Amino acid sequence: MFIGIDVGGANTKIVTSDGLVKSLYAPLWKNKSILYNLLSEYAAVSGLEAVGAVMTGELCDCFVSRREGVLHIKDALSTVFKEVKFFNSYCTFKDSTAVDKAPLSFASTNWLASSMLISEQYEDAIFVDLGSTTTDLIPIAGGEIKAGRTDLKRLKNGELIYSGVRRTNVATVLKSVELGEECSVSSELFAITADAYLVLGYITDADYSCESPDSYAFTDREEAEKSRLSAMRRLARVVCSDLEELGEDNTVRIAAQVKRAQVDELVASLKQIKAKYQLEQVVSAGIGDFIVKEAADSLNMPFLPLSACYGKTIAATFPAYAVARLLETF
Amino acid sequence: MFIGIDVGGANTKIVTSDGLVKSLYAPLWKNKSILYNLLSEYAAVSGLEAVGAVMTGELCDCFVSRREGVLHIKDALSTVFKEVKFFNSYCTFKDSTAVDKAPLSFASTNWLASSMLISEQYEDAIFVDLGSTTTDLIPIAGGEIKAGRTDLKRLKNGELIYSGVRRTNVATVLKSVELGEECSVSSELFAITADAYLVLGYITDADYSCESPDSYAFTDREEAEKSRLSAMRRLARVVCSDLEELGEDNTVRIAAQVKRAQVDELVASLKQIKAKYQLEQVVSAGIGDFIVKEAADSLNMPFLPLSACYGKTIAATFPAYAVARLLETF
Repeated sequence: MFIGIDVGGANTKIVTSDGLVKSLYAPLWKNKSILYNLLSEYAAVSGLEAVGAVMTGELCDCFVSRREGVLHIKDALSTVFKEVKFFNSYCTFKDSTAVDKAPLSFASTNWLASSMLISEQYEDAIFVDLGSTTTDLIPIAGGEIKAGRTDLKRLKNGELIYSGVRRTNVATVLKSVELGEECSVSSELFAITADAYLVLGYITDADYSCESPDSYAFTDREEAEKSRLSAMRRLARVVCSDLEELGEDNTVRIAAQVKRAQVDELVASLKQIKAKYQLEQVVSAGIGDFIVKEAADSLNMPFLPLSACYGKTIAATFPAYAVARLLETF
Repeated sequence: MFIGIDVGGANTKIVTSDGLVKSLYAPLWKNKSILYNLLSEYAAVSGLEAVGAVMTGELCDCFVSRREGVLHIKDALSTVFKEVKFFNSYCTFKDSTAVDKAPLSFASTNWLASSMLISEQYEDAIFVDLGSTTTDLIPIAGGEIKAGRTDLKRLKNGELIYSGVRRTNVATVLKSVELGEECSVSSELFAITADAYLVLGYITDADYSCESPDSYAFTDREEAEKSRLSAMRRLARVVCSDLEELGEDNTVRIAAQVKRAQVDELVASLKQIKAKYQLEQVVSAGIGDFIVKEAADSLNMPFLPLSACYGKTIAATFPAYAVARLLETF
C-alpha cells in the first residue's frame, strides 16, 4: 500500500492507495510538532510499501524561513515513517538526504504533483484547485506543466491566488461592499469566506472545517460557533456593525459580494492564462469547485470537475491522492 | 482632577487633567475582564472629581453585538470608579443608567469627543486622527461636526478608514505589489503596517506597541520579535517568500508600497470631504500623522499637527484627553 501526504500550514491531508482519505485540521502555527502525533497511527498500517510527501506548510510563520520549514516537515515525516519519498520541483521523488541538500526544491510542490497526474490525462487544460485557503491555476499545454516553480513566480503569473473558500479573511477579498452606497470594510479578521458560504447555503456547519475568527468567544454562548446566525454576526462586523443595525438582508448581500469577488478574481486569472496558452478546458479540484464552475461558465470554457471522476473526497484532497498514485508508478 | 478614558478593542488610553497620559495595550479579545485590573489603580488617586469615558471596544468580537459590548464596558468602568460620565452621540455626558437605556448612543464616540474639542478652536477643518488601527476623518464646517454618527455611516461617507499604522494586516492594504512585475499577495495575517514602518525607519521597536503576527514563535528564537530583520521576514512572507529568495531591497519595496497605499487611500477620502464641505485646513492627531502630512501636502491643504500644540503623547491619545477636558467644563 502507498500513502500520499500533503502537509499544509492549516490542514494535512492523507490518502492511501487502498482508499482511505483524511483531511485533518492541523495548524502548524499552533503546534509545529503536531505532525508527529497526527501521522504516527499511519506508520503502523500493515502492508505499507512507501510514503510520498508534498508540502506547502513550510510558509507558516512558525518558521523563520521556508528552508527551515521544509527541513522541519521533512524531519517530522522521516521520524514517523521508515522511508519517505519527497516530491520535488523537477517532478521526481527524492529521499530525505536530498531534501537536506536542497530544501527549497521541495517547497510548495503539492500543486505540481496534482498537475503531473492530471497532465497524463489532459494534455491541454487549465487545472484549477480551489481549496480552503488558496487557489492554484496551472496551465498544462501540450502535456507540459507551464506554471512557475515557486509561489512567488506563480503569484506574479496569476497562477496562484492566495484566497480560498474557508479560511480567507473577508477583508482581503473585498475593499468595500455595496449596501445602497459603497461602504468600505474593517481590516480586522472579523469574518472569513466560510462565513459567506455558510450564510449563502453553499456549505453546512459540518463543512466549516476551520476555526471561526471568534471561536475563542463561544465558551459561554448559547449559539453555536458555526451556526448561520453566528456567521451573519461575523459578516455584519466587517462593516463595523451588527445584526441589530444591519439586518439579515444586508448581511446576505455582503456574503453574496464575497462570492462575486472570488469568482471575478478567478475569471481574471483564467482569462489571462487562457489567452497566453490558448487553453479551453478547465479541470477542477478542491472544495471550491462551485466557484470554478461559475468562473468557467462565464468564460464559456468547458468545465470538468474531478469530483465527477474520483468522487468528492479525493477531489478535495487531490495533491495527496496524486502523490500516492505517482509514487505507485515511480 | 478629571480622568478621561478611551476604551478601544486593542488599546485603552487614560489621560488625567493633571498631565498623566497612558496608552495601554489591552486587547479585549484576549481577556474582556482586563479593564477591571487595568483601571483599578486609577480609582484610588486622590482628588479625583470625575471620570469621563468614550469607547470603540464594543465592536470587539468577544461581544455578540455592539449593545452587549457597550454594556460590558460600562459595567467595568462603573464597577471600578464611583461615578463615570459617558459621552454619547449627542455630544453630552450621561451616567450609567442612561447607558442601560440606550447603549448604542454610546458606541464609537471617541472621535466625536475629539472633534467636539477641536471644533471649539477650528470652525472649518478636517480633523484626521490616524491611529494604530483606524483613521477618522471628521469634517467640521461652520463649527458643526458633519460626520455620520455611526461607524457604518462613516465607512460609507469616507469618514472612517479602518486602517492604521500599527495593527493593520498588510494584505488588507494591498491586493498586489509591484516587484518588477505585479505580484498578488497572500491573504494570511503575515505582516502588519507596523512592520512596514519599522522597516522604513518611521518607527523603532519601542514604538511597535502591539504584538507582531508571529509573536508566538519567538520563544526559541535568537532574533527579537520587533527587530528590523524580523519585520522584513514577515513582509517577505506576504508574497509567499522569505528574505533568502526576495532579498532586502524587494522587501523594502513592499514596505514602501504599504505606505504609498495608505497615503493614497487617505488622499482619496480627504479630496472627497474637502470638495463636499469646501474645507482646506487639516488638523491631525494620532501616531500616524506623518501619513496625514504627506496626504495633506499632496493636496496642498494646510496641515496642523496637534502634537505641535499639545505634545506627542497627548496627540496620540487625543480622545481620552478631549473627554477629560470636555468633562472639566461640562
